[in-house]
Amino acid sequence: MQNSIRIGIAGYGNLGRGVETAIHKNPDLQLVGIFTRRAPESVSPCFAETAVFHMDSLSDFQDKIDVLILCGGSKDDLPQQGPVLASQFNIVDSFDTHARIPEYYASVDAPATVNKKTALISIGWDPGMFSINRLFGEALLPDGETYTFWGKGLSQGHSDAIRRVDGVKAGVQYTIPSNDAIEQVRSGARPVLSTKDKHTRECYVVLAEGADAAAVEQAIVTMPDYFADYNTTVNFIDEATLAKDHQRMPHGGFVIRSGNTSDEQKQVLEFSLKLDSNPEFTASILVAYARACYRLNQMQQYGAKTAYDVAPGLLSMKSPEQLRAELL
Amino acid sequence: MQNSIRIGIAGYGNLGRGVETAIHKNPDLQLVGIFTRRAPESVSPCFAETAVFHMDSLSDFQDKIDVLILCGGSKDDLPQQGPVLASQFNIVDSFDTHARIPEYYASVDAPATVNKKTALISIGWDPGMFSINRLFGEALLPDGETYTFWGKGLSQGHSDAIRRVDGVKAGVQYTIPSNDAIEQVRSGARPVLSTKDKHTRECYVVLAEGADAAAVEQAIVTMPDYFADYNTTVNFIDEATLAKDHQRMPHGGFVIRSGNTSDEQKQVLEFSLKLDSNPEFTASILVAYARACYRLNQMQQYGAKTAYDVAPGLLSMKSPEQLRAELL
Repeated sequence: MQNSIRIGIAGYGNLGRGVETAIHKNPDLQLVGIFTRRAPESVSPCFAETAVFHMDSLSDFQDKIDVLILCGGSKDDLPQQGPVLASQFNIVDSFDTHARIPEYYASVDAPATVNKKTALISIGWDPGMFSINRLFGEALLPDGETYTFWGKGLSQGHSDAIRRVDGVKAGVQYTIPSNDAIEQVRSGARPVLSTKDKHTRECYVVLAEGADAAAVEQAIVTMPDYFADYNTTVNFIDEATLAKDHQRMPHGGFVIRSGNTSDEQKQVLEFSLKLDSNPEFTASILVAYARACYRLNQMQQYGAKTAYDVAPGLLSMKSPEQLRAELL
Repeated sequence: MQNSIRIGIAGYGNLGRGVETAIHKNPDLQLVGIFTRRAPESVSPCFAETAVFHMDSLSDFQDKIDVLILCGGSKDDLPQQGPVLASQFNIVDSFDTHARIPEYYASVDAPATVNKKTALISIGWDPGMFSINRLFGEALLPDGETYTFWGKGLSQGHSDAIRRVDGVKAGVQYTIPSNDAIEQVRSGARPVLSTKDKHTRECYVVLAEGADAAAVEQAIVTMPDYFADYNTTVNFIDEATLAKDHQRMPHGGFVIRSGNTSDEQKQVLEFSLKLDSNPEFTASILVAYARACYRLNQMQQYGAKTAYDVAPGLLSMKSPEQLRAELL
C-alpha cells in the first residue's frame, strides 16, 4: 500500500508555484509533477527535483496521480478543463466567479459522478474559508447580520483597470477595509453597509512621460464600476518605488457575524486573514483540501463537492483519535 | 412526513434555558419539552408554552424526539447520562473536560453504534468552534504555531476559588487576554508564550464584615494553581456593585495561527468571539449541531462524533443548492 497521496499540478503560474511549495510542507503528500501548456523545458520549477510534463500527457498519468490540483484561471481555463479532467482524475480547484458556481458545479458533477471521481471546487479563502465562516455565522446566530470585508489587498482587476487609463505607465490598486465600518460592526450595532461603505481604494501610479497627473487622477477616480462609487486616492510614484514597494501580493479580510441570542445578549463572531502572499495561502488551502479529496474518494463520495461538504477532520494529517486527544 | 426536527432538552440550568431560547430562533426545529430531575411543576420555563417533564419519563419519548440535547455538567452529569441516553436517542452535548474526551467518546460510541444512534459530543465553542479553528490553522499552515487566548470572560472555577477564601463574602473573577501578547502573535513573530503570559486575572471581591482586605488580597494572589503564577489584581467592591455590574456571563477569546508558506511569506489566521452570554452562545451552537446530528443519523452515520466529523453544510437551514448559490 502506498504511504503518501500523489499530487499533480495542472497549470504553473503563481498559484501552481504556491502549490509546489506547499506540498513540501506536507510530508504525507508527494508531488508527481507539474503539467503545463508551455514547452516543459521552458519551465523552471521552484525545486530542482520537480518533474515537468506537457499538459497533453496528463491522461498517461491516470494511475499515477491520486489528486490533480487545477491552478488555472476561473475565466478561461477552469470552465474548459474542469469538466474534462474531472472525468479522469479526482480534482481540486479554486473556481472563484461566485455568480457562476452553480453552473460550474453542474458541469463538473456529472462527469465526476459517472467516473467515480471526487471534484472539490471553489476552494480557497473566498470562496472557501470565508464561505465556511459566513455559514457558521448564519447557523450559530440565525438572528444576525454577516459582513465581509476584503483587504488590505492587491486587487488584480482594479490594477488592470488603472493600467488601461491613458497616461498611466504602470500601477497597482489596493482595497482597504474601512476601520470605522469594522468597529461599528464589532460593536454589535448591525449597521446597514454597502460594499463601498466598507472599503476605500488606494492607487499607486507611475505616469507615462509627458502625462498630465491631474487628468489621470480624474480619469481614475471617476471610472464607473471600478472607482466612481468609492473613496479613491491616487498616489503618483516612480518606477523604482513601484518595483521596490509594490511587488508583493498581500491580501486578507474579515468575516464578521453580529447577532443576538436573545434581546439583551449580543454575540460577535469574527474570522480574519492577514496574508503576505495571496497565491501562496490559496495554494496551501488547495493542498489541504487535496488530502480531503483523496479521503472522500476513498469513502466513495463521488461527484462535485465544495468546502461546505468537507468535515474539518478530513483536512488534517492527524488521525481522528489523535485529533480528539490533542486538539479538540 | 414531519416538517421539523423534534428536540428535547435534558437538564434545565443556564445552558438548558439557552437551548430553549435558541430553538425559537430556528424555525425548522420544534421543542418537545424540557426533562428535569426536579419536580416538573417547580420549573418555570422561559416560554409559557414549553412543556416540562420529569427526567424519569424520558424513555416514553423515544419515538417523539429526534435529537436530545444534554445540558448537564461535564463533571458529574454527562459521564452518567451520556452512555445511557445515547442508547435511546440521538444526542448532542457540550462535554468540555478536554483531558477526558477520548474516554467519554468511547463510553458513548459503543451504545450509540449498537443502537444506530448518532452522538455529537463536546460541542460548543471550546471544545467546538475553537477546536475547528485550531485544526484549520494546523492543516492550512503546517509550518506555524497556534495560540488560544480566552476572555475577557467570567471564569466559574476561579470565582468559586475566590469565594472559598476566608473573609470573602462574594466575588467573581475575569480572565483577561493580554493585548501585548495578542499583538505579538498577530505580527507573525511566533513568540513562545505560556498560558500565564497570555492572560491576566481580575478579581472583584465583597469582603465579609470585619475582614482584613490586605490579608484577603494576599491569600488570593498567592493561591497556588489558580492565581500564584498569574498577574492578578484584586478590586474590593460592595454588594450593590456586584449585583449591578457583575451578574452577566460574558466570555470569548481568540484562536490565532501564525505560519509561513515559504521563508519570506507570513500568513496569519484569526478566529475570535466576543460574547455577552457564554451559556446562550454555547446553547445556540448545540442547537445548530442538533440539526446536523439529525441529518447524520438519517445518513446512517452512527456512533460518537465530534465537531471534526461534521461538514459545515449540515449545520445550515438552507439546502446545499441554496448554500452554493447564495453563500459560497
